Amino acid sequence: MIDTQRAADAVSPLDRIRQAYQPRLPRGLSGSIRLHLDPEPLVSDYPAQILEEFPNSLNKPVVRFVQGEGGLTTEAITVGVVFSGGQAPGGHNVIAGLLDALKSANPESRLIGFLDGPIGIVKDNWIELTPELVQAYRNTGGFDMIGSGRDKIEKAADLAACKKTLESHNARGLVVIGGDDSNTNAAVMAEYFLQQKSSVQVIGAPKTIDGDLKNDLIDASFGFDTAAKVYSELAGSICRDSASARKYYHFIRLMGRAASHVTLEVALQIHPNLTIISEEAEAAQWTLEQVVDQIVDVVVRRSAAGKNYGVIVIPEGLLEFLADVKVMISELSDILAADESHIKTLKRRTDRVDYFNQKMSPAAAATYAFLPDSIQLTLLKRDKHGNIPLSQVETEELLMGLVSQKLKALKSEGKYSGSFSPLGHFFGYEGRCVQPSNFDADYCYALGYTGAQLIRGGVTGYTISAQNLAAPVEDWQMGGVPVTSMLVIEQRKGKPKPVIKKTLVDLQRGPFRYFASHRGDWVEKDAFLYPGPIQYFGPSDVCDARTKTLELEAED
Amino acid sequence: MIDTQRAADAVSPLDRIRQAYQPRLPRGLSGSIRLHLDPEPLVSDYPAQILEEFPNSLNKPVVRFVQGEGGLTTEAITVGVVFSGGQAPGGHNVIAGLLDALKSANPESRLIGFLDGPIGIVKDNWIELTPELVQAYRNTGGFDMIGSGRDKIEKAADLAACKKTLESHNARGLVVIGGDDSNTNAAVMAEYFLQQKSSVQVIGAPKTIDGDLKNDLIDASFGFDTAAKVYSELAGSICRDSASARKYYHFIRLMGRAASHVTLEVALQIHPNLTIISEEAEAAQWTLEQVVDQIVDVVVRRSAAGKNYGVIVIPEGLLEFLADVKVMISELSDILAADESHIKTLKRRTDRVDYFNQKMSPAAAATYAFLPDSIQLTLLKRDKHGNIPLSQVETEELLMGLVSQKLKALKSEGKYSGSFSPLGHFFGYEGRCVQPSNFDADYCYALGYTGAQLIRGGVTGYTISAQNLAAPVEDWQMGGVPVTSMLVIEQRKGKPKPVIKKTLVDLQRGPFRYFASHRGDWVEKDAFLYPGPIQYFGPSDVCDARTKTLELEAED
Repeated sequence: MIDTQRAADAVSPLDRIRQAYQPRLPRGLSGSIRLHLDPEPLVSDYPAQILEEFPNSLNKPVVRFVQGEGGLTTEAITVGVVFSGGQAPGGHNVIAGLLDALKSANPESRLIGFLDGPIGIVKDNWIELTPELVQAYRNTGGFDMIGSGRDKIEKAADLAACKKTLESHNARGLVVIGGDDSNTNAAVMAEYFLQQKSSVQVIGAPKTIDGDLKNDLIDASFGFDTAAKVYSELAGSICRDSASARKYYHFIRLMGRAASHVTLEVALQIHPNLTIISEEAEAAQWTLEQVVDQIVDVVVRRSAAGKNYGVIVIPEGLLEFLADVKVMISELSDILAADESHIKTLKRRTDRVDYFNQKMSPAAAATYAFLPDSIQLTLLKRDKHGNIPLSQVETEELLMGLVSQKLKALKSEGKYSGSFSPLGHFFGYEGRCVQPSNFDADYCYALGYTGAQLIRGGVTGYTISAQNLAAPVEDWQMGGVPVTSMLVIEQRKGKPKPVIKKTLVDLQRGPFRYFASHRGDWVEKDAFLYPGPIQYFGPSDVCDARTKTLELEAED
Repeated sequence: MIDTQRAADAVSPLDRIRQAYQPRLPRGLSGSIRLHLDPEPLVSDYPAQILEEFPNSLNKPVVRFVQGEGGLTTEAITVGVVFSGGQAPGGHNVIAGLLDALKSANPESRLIGFLDGPIGIVKDNWIELTPELVQAYRNTGGFDMIGSGRDKIEKAADLAACKKTLESHNARGLVVIGGDDSNTNAAVMAEYFLQQKSSVQVIGAPKTIDGDLKNDLIDASFGFDTAAKVYSELAGSICRDSASARKYYHFIRLMGRAASHVTLEVALQIHPNLTIISEEAEAAQWTLEQVVDQIVDVVVRRSAAGKNYGVIVIPEGLLEFLADVKVMISELSDILAADESHIKTLKRRTDRVDYFNQKMSPAAAATYAFLPDSIQLTLLKRDKHGNIPLSQVETEELLMGLVSQKLKALKSEGKYSGSFSPLGHFFGYEGRCVQPSNFDADYCYALGYTGAQLIRGGVTGYTISAQNLAAPVEDWQMGGVPVTSMLVIEQRKGKPKPVIKKTLVDLQRGPFRYFASHRGDWVEKDAFLYPGPIQYFGPSDVCDARTKTLELEAED
């Protein structure tokens, strides 16, 4: 059971005061509003598999909310809400916005929250989200009001169970607060309900701190702003520590297994001496050794300038984007599948290297031989899905070791005379449940508010859309985008599957271009910036600043 | 060289606005003030070694500043300042307060900053700290204005070099911003200058985020407030993540090799399910296995309540306080000294355990055998001082492994049926260079301001004192305490040495008593609090809150 009730004095001073913050609303959601449907559907040419799997969800138009009247029910309705996947700051405000919009349209409307993620719908495990309960969670971090979970509703039995649960509550709709896969799952449920002639509507809210659920109609996913600001605080403080102590190299790994948006945003905020962006590494087909050489070059240049300290920032998913690592993992995977029992006997480094020299292509064998002992061993294990656990490698530690080796070699050749004391950091959990920034507090509230209007407007299979987010809140354009219009077919666990394509860092857009044209100035000079802790009160410059990513994308 | 000049636009929005913040001043430092000397010296009964080493620095009275006139020079003077040791938030404000007080007494007075720590005095490496330069660093974090270093001025040649440097600048005094050892070193310099009939005065400012430089006359060291708040933000966010995801145990290790003040303060701020305090562990003579059993007990009880998640907080220095670990390290040290080359051949766990079973006492051998493989190996290495590198052990990882083992055993006995997924974190560098809290900004400014007045008042060999810090700034009582009155004799590297005794957590005082009487409520219930990021603007409840440690000590 979730501890849903907290004594009024059992909250921090910040949480107590933030409970009273009333998020601002975009003009299109204030006063009398109506649903505006675009005259044409967004997409007309769907992949065959999507035509087949989503026959009732196709050819829908983008919808927007504008001031006016009509088209939104004022009946008392019941709506369900659920968190799906990892935490992101602001989730509770999506629920607060949803509740306020429902109650404002009809005070008899009800909101119910399914517990511990989508499995809560299957199991009909829920609580009533009353205004009193929700009050204690306004503008707070975390998903603890109702918990979250990673289950997907895909099997026929689970879909049927969800239909049964939602119909038993006489629910008009369900809002799924989740990332790309969860929004796809919302579309699967919406399609199923349409096929089953159920009237339950399903709407998704775009959540992910990784920032990779965005497109022409969704400027940003919620949580990215706050999480990137926390990581910028921490990484910035470490830059200042580095410039004060003047004796350590800090290697900071940041969240983002697929996209490097978080790493890029932090780089734009703090100006590290070197930042590696996975998407650039992939486009340029960098090898692991080339990445190491770039770092070594920075260390050597700074050392020549009398600076044996600095900060290097890398994204969590870097290794998976490196050309030679990809080849090596693919070959290793085949060899392991064929010969795992023998390989397990190779305890000595030299035995392993000799063996893979025979079995692998020369390039892949060289990459393997380049790795330190402990990582060679890690890569010979397989996870429960049979995959090589590349994600378990602490990339910052790997790079620290490899850079150290290269520097020793340079020193013995007389090409480098500095000292190199590296320290590793990884930031992830620190930023997922903090109190949302003013931006995310407002944005999430607007998302929830919009979710309620989409349900009142009778649409289903939509993700809540949000445009013009770099502008003041009043000017945000909220609406809905059909999930089917965002789907592509990708291989997942060996099968083609409709998914929302993750939006990676675009090397042609403003954020990366700005980074690429300025990073040269950050190498030898200490051009560090120290953003400091997120501020909720005080000057707007400090409290309401958008991410550099959003600002620079808006200027494109 | 230090990059001393930063373009006005090369600062973060927060730093730009904070540069304009004018710290509040205690009444005793505002307007016309005078130096008040206590009628009697604080200490009359010194240890023999202190009598011998500090003949000119004894029997001095505590001094205080009160409103009034007289006794403070208005001559134009030159003062030097230096950072010594690790970074702590607020250091730049000590310098700002020092400069403002000097310039306010006589606009011709000058402040010079020695670079990269005390070695900068020896080498006469310095910059002029002009109002323009200092302006860019007001209320910022870090020590990067002039850098810091860990050198101590103890050798005769270094002392003579410092005297030469300071006299060549015609310096009236030197302010050393540092921790316990650095303040001791300030007293050594003060005594040397007195012996050499030099008029240079030396004053120390109490700095350390560990919070262990405090006594009846110094309520708190600077930096503790801010650093503890950053760690509380991070650890609190992790508590919320734990309560949201409901599937991980987070083990959080916090700074504090000797004292557990930081860990205790964070526990009081966030209410983790279990917190271990080194001082209690030592007083109760807990063994490593007893600590593990306490954690296991919490995990089992929470699992029975349906909660397979939680947060455990431990101090960095815990292992050194555990009864059995101390014995084992002592025996291991002797055995290694006698037989290191043979021990290095013991690659297999069973060989090592057999060997130490023969050589160690049964208790110590059992402790060694209890440790996982990797840590057994770490403890067989020795650091450059010949010590066993206990501090290199990642205590949270050690505990995670040992708890996991015990839970497996309990599961096989049918006494536990939960899941246990532990994740480790260590927070240190994140909190040392962040922008100082309002408290530390004000406090550091008052420390610097007081330092200038102590020099104007002609005293030397003092640490700046500060009382009544739990009260509003206006009511703080600033002054100076003779360093010699705080010295005790302790063994350092095998020799008796005068040192300022670190103030550990007192199990009889308010902070620990409050913790001890409430922690039972935090085990099974999720009583987590989420303090959130440090706030500089907005409601006083949020922005000016003292640490729980300071509040509860004030109530004693």
